[in-house]
Amino acid sequence: MSRRFWSDLTTRLEPYTPGEQPQGDNLLKLNTNESPYPPSERVLEALGALTGDELLRYPDPEATALRQAAADFHGIAVNCVFAGNGSDEVLSHVFQGLLKHSRELLFPDISYSFYPVWCQLHGVPYRKVPLREDFSIHAEDYDSAAAAVIVPNPNAPTGLLAPLTVIRQFLESAPDRLLVVDEAYIDFGGESAVPLLSEYDNLLVVQTLSKSRALAGLRIGMAFGSPALIEGLERIKDSFNSYPLGVAAQRAGTEAYRDSDWFRQSCNAVMANRQSLTDALVALGFEVLPSAANFVFVKHSAVSGRFIFDALREEGVIIRRWDKPRIEDYLRITIGTEEQCQRLVETLGQVLTDL
Amino acid sequence: MSRRFWSDLTTRLEPYTPGEQPQGDNLLKLNTNESPYPPSERVLEALGALTGDELLRYPDPEATALRQAAADFHGIAVNCVFAGNGSDEVLSHVFQGLLKHSRELLFPDISYSFYPVWCQLHGVPYRKVPLREDFSIHAEDYDSAAAAVIVPNPNAPTGLLAPLTVIRQFLESAPDRLLVVDEAYIDFGGESAVPLLSEYDNLLVVQTLSKSRALAGLRIGMAFGSPALIEGLERIKDSFNSYPLGVAAQRAGTEAYRDSDWFRQSCNAVMANRQSLTDALVALGFEVLPSAANFVFVKHSAVSGRFIFDALREEGVIIRRWDKPRIEDYLRITIGTEEQCQRLVETLGQVLTDL
Repeated sequence: MSRRFWSDLTTRLEPYTPGEQPQGDNLLKLNTNESPYPPSERVLEALGALTGDELLRYPDPEATALRQAAADFHGIAVNCVFAGNGSDEVLSHVFQGLLKHSRELLFPDISYSFYPVWCQLHGVPYRKVPLREDFSIHAEDYDSAAAAVIVPNPNAPTGLLAPLTVIRQFLESAPDRLLVVDEAYIDFGGESAVPLLSEYDNLLVVQTLSKSRALAGLRIGMAFGSPALIEGLERIKDSFNSYPLGVAAQRAGTEAYRDSDWFRQSCNAVMANRQSLTDALVALGFEVLPSAANFVFVKHSAVSGRFIFDALREEGVIIRRWDKPRIEDYLRITIGTEEQCQRLVETLGQVLTDL
Repeated sequence: MSRRFWSDLTTRLEPYTPGEQPQGDNLLKLNTNESPYPPSERVLEALGALTGDELLRYPDPEATALRQAAADFHGIAVNCVFAGNGSDEVLSHVFQGLLKHSRELLFPDISYSFYPVWCQLHGVPYRKVPLREDFSIHAEDYDSAAAAVIVPNPNAPTGLLAPLTVIRQFLESAPDRLLVVDEAYIDFGGESAVPLLSEYDNLLVVQTLSKSRALAGLRIGMAFGSPALIEGLERIKDSFNSYPLGVAAQRAGTEAYRDSDWFRQSCNAVMANRQSLTDALVALGFEVLPSAANFVFVKHSAVSGRFIFDALREEGVIIRRWDKPRIEDYLRITIGTEEQCQRLVETLGQVLTDL
């Protein structure tokens, strides 16, 4: 196969591998941190109401209604809100537009494994900063002379939450260093840094509607920051794809932000299931890191991560595991419905009994 | 406003300006080449059938069903098909992944004005090659030692079609130079280069579902090429955003490809309206370039383009015009429904009579 037309970059890239999306009956997919509950009925109504005349037109390139709904939800101005085609697109624009400097970008050694891929894609110099032994994040471990820091909060795949006091330490210890807080999982018990935007201009917060708003299928990501940061992202967007969000995503996302009752109930149900699952896993001999996300990161006291991962898979239960230093014995398990968590626990019980 | 966190690239960018999307009653929007006819009923049915369980899941990252439907339509293999979030995203990946080399990329001086923006975004050296006096494209004007050539066919905003004999000349005169044919408007009477893929491995064809399939609102773009070219694009995609197309776009696009009756009827209606509109414009004193697209590019024999553009706007009719050398007196008018074309012609008649 001739690769003679590939750019040097294309040849060099090592792309990110997303969690698998296996197809099949009776599979239990607890590997990609999707919501176990379907989205708000208002979302489905908005999609059903789309007309042919709306589909034939280009969508609003500025996604005004969606951004306004997000602004209203957070109590901020609409010019502090950016919307993109999933938080992965938003993050890619953030890396290219705001994190690429001659000085280094810093992020934890254990975090979202797409970060080094975007660094490679956009030529961003970076350095990984080790998490402490207990996987906690400490602001004083991060060089204040760096260009920027990106941290997921709660962190992935550990699920550990850094309190806002730690976020403030990051912001105050280096006012000329940009801090990006990747809050994909913040709605399951964490405290968002969005309210800090009124105090700090070196803060950008990225969120997604894929997890807590159950819209992974529609690809909607957001960023919140000062008008200057948002304008920078818009310049990248308008040099890449002026219409990143289709009308279906814009309508659905707007309704998802407006239905705060559904949002609270759904997040609360996930948190309740997380607690029950944690208890059951501890009873089975697992160490369970305290999670503020819609997944748990766990390690069995006696059995290897790889063995459990493979054994669950044999039984049609798909979870996630990384062959990486420090975490090779850990398993990441998405919080499902009560029934799904029960099936997982029963399957795990069998797997561990059969040893 | 502090821009201290912007990357150098962000500061340097001059983003593309898309056609405006003005809101208002009784506006006639003939400025962004959207379809005048709503999409296939099968598309609307597919969207209405989406369930909450589908929305909460990540979509198929490989858009397999959509790519297969496109492959079936064109009679090619599915590994020759790439799908992205609108043809703008696809083109951006093409620039970064396949057109970026130390040698130059060539494209016509008058063509899609996003091309130089992507060159700037991705650092692609390029040179514009003047169209001939009559705006025609000739393969012998393009240096065979260049890295690549991108030409829209039909060209935009002229609407002129290059026959496949010219495309073959491009391909044969430089087998090691990649040719990208941007066929956004090919379905309105042009002959696609996709069948040439079986003969040439230095060809990539980009298409969109925004125009001839009336799905601008959903953002679906495609590329067709050798498996090696498609794999290169996938590497870029998987380093940028693994899930570019949501489930709504994938389902709708699949049905749009499958409903070939709707497709033929709709394209034929646009072509019939184009002929009637052309006749009426000639009667009003316009020179109308022969168009193979869903727009016409026209110049009045006596009145300036700017005057007509402004006068139409006063009457709520929005068309498109560029303040650029060679084309400042031309107007680009999207083909509407019969009624829309009639309103345009009547308004133009008044504007020209009032002089």
